[in-house]
Amino acid sequence: MPLQFADRLNNVETSAIRELFKLLGKPGIISFAGGFPDSAMFDVDGIRAASNAALDEEPGAALQYGATEGYQPLREQLAAFMASKGAQDIAPENLIVTTGSQQALDLLGKTLISPGDKVIVEGPTFLATIQCFRLYGAELISAPIDGDGVQTDVLEQLIAEHQPKFVYLIPTFGNPSGALLPLERRKKVLELAVKYNTLVVEDDPYGDLYFGEAPPPSLLALSAQVPGSRELLVHCGSLSKVLSPGLRVGWMIAPPELLAKATMCKQFSDAHTSTFAQATAAQYLKAGRMPATLARVRAVYAERAQAMGDALRKELGDAIAFVQPQGGLFVWARLTGAGGKVADGNVFAKRAIEKGVAFVPGAPFFCSQPDNATLRLSFATADADKIREGVARLARAL
Amino acid sequence: MPLQFADRLNNVETSAIRELFKLLGKPGIISFAGGFPDSAMFDVDGIRAASNAALDEEPGAALQYGATEGYQPLREQLAAFMASKGAQDIAPENLIVTTGSQQALDLLGKTLISPGDKVIVEGPTFLATIQCFRLYGAELISAPIDGDGVQTDVLEQLIAEHQPKFVYLIPTFGNPSGALLPLERRKKVLELAVKYNTLVVEDDPYGDLYFGEAPPPSLLALSAQVPGSRELLVHCGSLSKVLSPGLRVGWMIAPPELLAKATMCKQFSDAHTSTFAQATAAQYLKAGRMPATLARVRAVYAERAQAMGDALRKELGDAIAFVQPQGGLFVWARLTGAGGKVADGNVFAKRAIEKGVAFVPGAPFFCSQPDNATLRLSFATADADKIREGVARLARAL
Repeated sequence: MPLQFADRLNNVETSAIRELFKLLGKPGIISFAGGFPDSAMFDVDGIRAASNAALDEEPGAALQYGATEGYQPLREQLAAFMASKGAQDIAPENLIVTTGSQQALDLLGKTLISPGDKVIVEGPTFLATIQCFRLYGAELISAPIDGDGVQTDVLEQLIAEHQPKFVYLIPTFGNPSGALLPLERRKKVLELAVKYNTLVVEDDPYGDLYFGEAPPPSLLALSAQVPGSRELLVHCGSLSKVLSPGLRVGWMIAPPELLAKATMCKQFSDAHTSTFAQATAAQYLKAGRMPATLARVRAVYAERAQAMGDALRKELGDAIAFVQPQGGLFVWARLTGAGGKVADGNVFAKRAIEKGVAFVPGAPFFCSQPDNATLRLSFATADADKIREGVARLARAL
Repeated sequence: MPLQFADRLNNVETSAIRELFKLLGKPGIISFAGGFPDSAMFDVDGIRAASNAALDEEPGAALQYGATEGYQPLREQLAAFMASKGAQDIAPENLIVTTGSQQALDLLGKTLISPGDKVIVEGPTFLATIQCFRLYGAELISAPIDGDGVQTDVLEQLIAEHQPKFVYLIPTFGNPSGALLPLERRKKVLELAVKYNTLVVEDDPYGDLYFGEAPPPSLLALSAQVPGSRELLVHCGSLSKVLSPGLRVGWMIAPPELLAKATMCKQFSDAHTSTFAQATAAQYLKAGRMPATLARVRAVYAERAQAMGDALRKELGDAIAFVQPQGGLFVWARLTGAGGKVADGNVFAKRAIEKGVAFVPGAPFFCSQPDNATLRLSFATADADKIREGVARLARAL
């Protein structure tokens, strides 16, 4: 008799992207497919100094079991980091450290979602969010986006119609959309939270990666201006995109009752996040290296984003449409079919692999009604020359 | 309107132990309450050397996203570690790295337990296992233990009666029982797995901490001798008790189909375990420091276990009954009530705190039919003198 797995596994499918990723091992492939930062940009010296400081100054704490809520010096540093980004009133006790922000999503699912509960997400949204929430039995509702992120008028209709358990958004340089939600829409989202008494989750792993002017304040920072909204807001942050994904250090800010329940769930998920990684992150932030690191990665990604945008416009012309990203890691594009060119992202992805360039077709990022003409291109891991060569290959594949 | 949490949260209660732990801050308390190793025994130099080697030799991999299954060099080292402990035929592909073995429990729950499924655990068993499985809706069945661990004849009756999704055991120096399951009972467990086609989970965080002769082979190692049992066996290991809990490095060995499903679930739980911690652990194992570290911690805990056993016999006499532990971190004891002394672990725990010594009453470790006369005493974190003083305080409290 075969093993009987839990019913919840019936809610998720093997990812279509996974199949594509198997092809990435082909020699000479230029990849725009990844969702990760460039390893070459990691501040290895700074992290080494931080981990050695942690072991020198507090070996017991850095290597022992720790509080589920997180290592207190890191919670203090993260509260200060949030203050530096405009959320002045976050105390260390208002956040818990999570094992990457992926775990924050998992804890939200575990804490909030009963099978059949509705959750509104952007269409498109982060693939692992879709799968994570579905494992807990969520019925996902797709709120359409445009070049400015989620369309708040449609979002309001969907909230009114579906009365969701919560709304999950990546308002700043979203994955995969790269879109930046403007100030007015941000305020509207917070007003909707209050008007409909609906919890809103702001996932913000990319907000630090802006290329020009700083983006509008996070929903968290803005919530100080919208009475009643803070009590209905969850904010997930991460060091993965700016410092190192390998530390697996994220955090979640939430109303006290929710934070307490999530902490209880975390206790039985992994007891706590690696104290070694937490103490290293705390020492890194304490050493004051973050501003210089941020400036460096912003400059590099800005150059690459520009190179990709320029090359796409030059090489693919009106066969592709996209909004030039102002931050983050991704160009979200749509095949127009102009001139009888390919207009299906899946077909295009297969052809592109044959020409030696990879990207992720956009359809799997939709929880429903996929737009098959879309694609996600990461500019993070290839340098500008490689990006130009890769886009030239895309043009040949088209 | 208050937040509506998921139904699964109704299955767990705030821990009684938690309330007790709040009292531990009292100055001068000698604590036998912890479930953790002694920080003073961590090989800080070895871990510092290992993490620096990881950053020197493979900074990209140590700080980047990694495979959900685990960092390949660590999987190789862990397979070799298992071979050194008698499980010769474990390939790196047969195990995944987990964020502590707590996450292995969580992944088993997520992968296998549908609400209402039955799971057999020892009575008593690890508290976080009870809560973890209940969060997934498990109905727990308690299999009684004696001084030699789970009573396999009763276990067989329970398996036949309840047809559980799986059986969860800590056969070697269990928490809280400290018991060592003899060879014959180990074979019987594997035979029961095959006879009833029932999955068995062997949780083994303490097996390396033996004081005299090595314990009988793990269920995993023995499964090579019981045809068909390997396909029904899960083994969870951990570096937390012998190297450092703060790394949060555990592993799970399971049949391929189950391992694949658990990997998928892990992808949406925390993406992967900290590659920084994994690369550090891999370098540590590769450097060959583990045998000396194990020898050192075994010797220290053996002395402390002896000191506690001797003191308990001398100071509490026939008012307490226990089996002298041959490994692990715990003495599991039972108040006999002899001479009209206190026979309730909760009452005794409160009196003990007043006398300046803490331990955990045994009742919460039972998923049902608690034995209120039991208590768990950790000898891991106090030195022999402190242990003698603590036990003298216990005698005064009694």
